[in-house]
Amino acid sequence: MAANQPLFAARASTGEVETGHSFQPKFDAQGLLPAIVTDAASGEVLMFAWMNAEALGLTLETQIAHFWSRSRQRLWRKGEESGNLMRVSELRTDCDQDALWLKVSVAGNGIACHTGERSCFYRALPLGAAPGPDLALRRA
Amino acid sequence: MAANQPLFAARASTGEVETGHSFQPKFDAQGLLPAIVTDAASGEVLMFAWMNAEALGLTLETQIAHFWSRSRQRLWRKGEESGNLMRVSELRTDCDQDALWLKVSVAGNGIACHTGERSCFYRALPLGAAPGPDLALRRA
Repeated sequence: MAANQPLFAARASTGEVETGHSFQPKFDAQGLLPAIVTDAASGEVLMFAWMNAEALGLTLETQIAHFWSRSRQRLWRKGEESGNLMRVSELRTDCDQDALWLKVSVAGNGIACHTGERSCFYRALPLGAAPGPDLALRRA
Repeated sequence: MAANQPLFAARASTGEVETGHSFQPKFDAQGLLPAIVTDAASGEVLMFAWMNAEALGLTLETQIAHFWSRSRQRLWRKGEESGNLMRVSELRTDCDQDALWLKVSVAGNGIACHTGERSCFYRALPLGAAPGPDLALRRA
């Protein structure tokens, strides 16, 4: 690709964004798109992260999930240290093309969370309770 | 609750946030948390939206999903016009407590997306292709 060519198309009308066949992503003010990652086999939500245009481009091309680490401010090939790379079998966008959903298989020991949990979402909030500073999480 | 009481607890150490039992959410600079919504039965990702503290509090208390509409800048009870309310059966948070995952059943005609699709994520990107402004979406 030419160095000055944009990685993705510019936004057109709402109708084209919602019902068209052209990928016209809306990155946020920081140049990022939210990315939901689910396990391709179980459907479980594994993690939530962010992608910039480069991370998304690399993910599409290699089918290995890349993100933008906001805490480290750098490109992040998920699992680059642990070996638990994420192979992407499907990558969807939503109606207004400002969010992504990746279905993945986790390589290595299959663990997605840096805490050692399989999914980052290992705790649930109590339902039917009024909100308050004493809300206790429970294992999900 | 007293008017001046915070809705949720303040953040403590990273260790307590990741492994503790106290809900200590990290709202972003706009006071929002990203919220992933999946179908409780099928596991399909239905939508992605945002919650402020009030929307989260109402969701916990009523078990009906409430969000903050960034486009309309107001509290949004999802389905308030269409009748397709979302009943929440589980609400999880992630390791660093800056994202939420809701499992829901959609009432009414079961449609989550304003376009008439069941899920907002009805299009996929091609994998194995280099990124470029000509990327074509396909029905997922």
